[in-house]
Amino acid sequence: MATMKGIQPHLPSTIANTNGHRKIYANQETAIDFRPHRKTSSRSNRLAESLSHLLHLHVEPPAQKSLHYTNENFKIEDKHNTPVMSPKEDISGKWREIHGGYEWDNLLDPLHPCLRREIVKYGEFAQATYDAFDFDSFSEYCGSCRYNENRLFDKLGLNKHGYKVTKYIYAMSHIDLPRWLERSHLVDKWSKDSNWMGFIGVSDDNEFRRIGRRDIVVAWRGTVSPSEWYEDFQRKLDPIGHGEAKVEHGFLSIYKSKSESTRYNKSSASEQVMKEVQRLVQFYNARGEEVTLTITGHSLGGALALLTAYEAASSLPDLHVSVLSFGAPRVGNIAFRDELHQMGVKTLRVVAKQDLVPRMPGLVFNESLQKFDDIIGTLDWVYTHVGTELKLDICSSPYLKHGFNVSGFHMLETYLHLVDGFHSKTSTFRSDARRDVALVNKTCDMLVDELRIPHFWYQPANKGLKCNEHGRWVKPIRDPEDIPLPTSQTHPCN
Amino acid sequence: MATMKGIQPHLPSTIANTNGHRKIYANQETAIDFRPHRKTSSRSNRLAESLSHLLHLHVEPPAQKSLHYTNENFKIEDKHNTPVMSPKEDISGKWREIHGGYEWDNLLDPLHPCLRREIVKYGEFAQATYDAFDFDSFSEYCGSCRYNENRLFDKLGLNKHGYKVTKYIYAMSHIDLPRWLERSHLVDKWSKDSNWMGFIGVSDDNEFRRIGRRDIVVAWRGTVSPSEWYEDFQRKLDPIGHGEAKVEHGFLSIYKSKSESTRYNKSSASEQVMKEVQRLVQFYNARGEEVTLTITGHSLGGALALLTAYEAASSLPDLHVSVLSFGAPRVGNIAFRDELHQMGVKTLRVVAKQDLVPRMPGLVFNESLQKFDDIIGTLDWVYTHVGTELKLDICSSPYLKHGFNVSGFHMLETYLHLVDGFHSKTSTFRSDARRDVALVNKTCDMLVDELRIPHFWYQPANKGLKCNEHGRWVKPIRDPEDIPLPTSQTHPCN
Repeated sequence: MATMKGIQPHLPSTIANTNGHRKIYANQETAIDFRPHRKTSSRSNRLAESLSHLLHLHVEPPAQKSLHYTNENFKIEDKHNTPVMSPKEDISGKWREIHGGYEWDNLLDPLHPCLRREIVKYGEFAQATYDAFDFDSFSEYCGSCRYNENRLFDKLGLNKHGYKVTKYIYAMSHIDLPRWLERSHLVDKWSKDSNWMGFIGVSDDNEFRRIGRRDIVVAWRGTVSPSEWYEDFQRKLDPIGHGEAKVEHGFLSIYKSKSESTRYNKSSASEQVMKEVQRLVQFYNARGEEVTLTITGHSLGGALALLTAYEAASSLPDLHVSVLSFGAPRVGNIAFRDELHQMGVKTLRVVAKQDLVPRMPGLVFNESLQKFDDIIGTLDWVYTHVGTELKLDICSSPYLKHGFNVSGFHMLETYLHLVDGFHSKTSTFRSDARRDVALVNKTCDMLVDELRIPHFWYQPANKGLKCNEHGRWVKPIRDPEDIPLPTSQTHPCN
Repeated sequence: MATMKGIQPHLPSTIANTNGHRKIYANQETAIDFRPHRKTSSRSNRLAESLSHLLHLHVEPPAQKSLHYTNENFKIEDKHNTPVMSPKEDISGKWREIHGGYEWDNLLDPLHPCLRREIVKYGEFAQATYDAFDFDSFSEYCGSCRYNENRLFDKLGLNKHGYKVTKYIYAMSHIDLPRWLERSHLVDKWSKDSNWMGFIGVSDDNEFRRIGRRDIVVAWRGTVSPSEWYEDFQRKLDPIGHGEAKVEHGFLSIYKSKSESTRYNKSSASEQVMKEVQRLVQFYNARGEEVTLTITGHSLGGALALLTAYEAASSLPDLHVSVLSFGAPRVGNIAFRDELHQMGVKTLRVVAKQDLVPRMPGLVFNESLQKFDDIIGTLDWVYTHVGTELKLDICSSPYLKHGFNVSGFHMLETYLHLVDGFHSKTSTFRSDARRDVALVNKTCDMLVDELRIPHFWYQPANKGLKCNEHGRWVKPIRDPEDIPLPTSQTHPCN
């Protein structure tokens, strides 16, 4: 639904000119018209483009030379009748290692298959917060989840992972932040103050046995438009905890804001999450089960994941807490990083080399770029990344367009595709990767045209309009079961 | 499906600045955020914008002052349970008048209700050529009709008009014209040489009785992107007929091109149409029925309609021929106009005041605009409009955005909405207009936000991708019945 936010496919003229007539892969049967399309460029994209050139982030034409794929690898038609997942293996004996027990030593290059599948599992939880979000500014439920807690995974085909959602998380949308949070055009909406920001879930008994412990997952929704980030980024650090740790003001605002006058945020996102996590931990500990907390999120959601980890590790020191983030920005200062480390929080940051967001803050600049060096010099030092990095490369995939695409590089589906195909830094894209490549183009235009997958294809028929018995096209009312309620039931644990 | 052609909603900054914070209509209950959205602007749109300013086509803020609508008129929700059509009345006694017998004297201002309904009927035939067209450049059937002759009207809900399609029309897509015709990215397509360009149909027995004669309709597909017109417009006139008549080279090329090496254009569009019209005329004349030919088309389709009328009137002098065009450009010189008149062809041109296309050719200009006066001075004189004009005004509708929108102003659905609401030049939009307003936004962004109708909403779920049994998103193969065949059967007459 990123189209609702005005994200445009992007191909700057400089790239188009040099890369417009691409080479056709060896043995490729289809001849394609590779003439550069006329693309539009918003102010934000132009800024991103300038920035990209400064940082040498854009992909030079020779980059595509690294592809040594035969036609067989390339044709996804051959995979249409193959499973999209590998069979799940028992990881009950090695979950500690997979969740950072040894800081992922010897697991990342080459990437251990069990770890890869767990990364994809948690990434799909984070992706669910986008897929189920109501982005439609004409909807009276804009900013809510389109499905209730009990059928979210069913609607999105995620029951396969063996988790249940127990609670939704809401955050305020009227804090002094820019356009990260969605607001409806309408006043008669479900809530003018809050946005659905994610969910808390827990593994069921089968998954409990497979993964060797009761896993509580917290999945945070992020933002899908990096072009908005460096226009509006706050450069103020606020203290967290009782020491020297500080974190970016905007992230903390989303996490901590509440107001008695709202329907959904009489308690803050932070309070909602901590209350539910504590409830679940107590419940399963009382049954004698080992419990872990895994927090995931993409982009802004990855930042919120770190704040949650900090708070959970502080208040539940015996709980194993790990963070798995995708394309997340820097969040806090060195003291914040060190405290997280001291509390035993294990963080794996999945980062695409070409994505701008993980370079922020520190990549804050003013529009004219004149003060660029001053600012980056200061902030790069102030903001520090946490944990271990798994670095991905857009150029590793023969399925992806490599021309600069500020939003496409940042999309979580792009990340999940790259994880699925990653074997090691020196090897090519896995030919036996099973994840459906078509998913990449759900809300962007990143797949090469040969694949014939439409751009921005993830949307309902006629954008949700239905023809009624009189022949009029109307927006149906939402199923009452899926209309959000502030008094939403907490799901029983099992 | 205009989104496939890269048409962008358009709001130039000059308009946005003055018109960004619109007044809310009296008694209106919903408070809307009217802040101007950040829009992108392609080179073509910028050209159109410059041109619009030169010609004073853009709508000044005071224009919206002419709206004196109460809340009741404005809320389409109130109409959701009302019919979309008026009952059909018997026009068997007045069809000659309705089809231009007296040059539409006293029928246009105020617009006669029977004429209005006939205009909408033929306009919906022309609209069918867009709605059923396969615009998907990733489809192997790109450029074809998505449904076969026998179920086109059923699929589009047009059986209500009481016509049957008897033949499809194809034109070549490789003539020396710009981007008017769609081409697939693929080589393994149904035809790399031809495009579906429209259909021939005939009224059934019920409609025959209601309208007082057997009516053959020819509906031509046009082009949906006026921004492409003035970049590429050919300024060459070719002779037609045996006299002084001349018409624009590009239009005639589409109409007349053929090649033995093609599957669909061993005969030209012209030959296909004339052969089928002659067959139908002979068939129904032999039954002693009065037969008429009504040719319709929007944009380029309106130009092709005039060429068809010229040819039909020349070869079938006893046939009543009328043309009903929407947003059509000028086609030929004064001699062409005069010959059409002398042959008794009746032409009603429906034109929106703000639409650029009816000003072309004559509005040809080079990119720098420096030679604008020279060119327009010459061509305005050379190219002449034919027939009687019904002028519509975007500003007459309280449902439409009035900010400059080069493609939205030109869309056929915008035209049909304006016709439906038109009573007279001095009266306001008809409050009892019944046509579904939501249709306007099918392939543009013209409806005011209060209506909550998504932009560009006309598209299949997930842009045609379906999830197969393995969980993979794939494009289903087309129903074999709808795969085009060059040996397509001619439909029996009755």
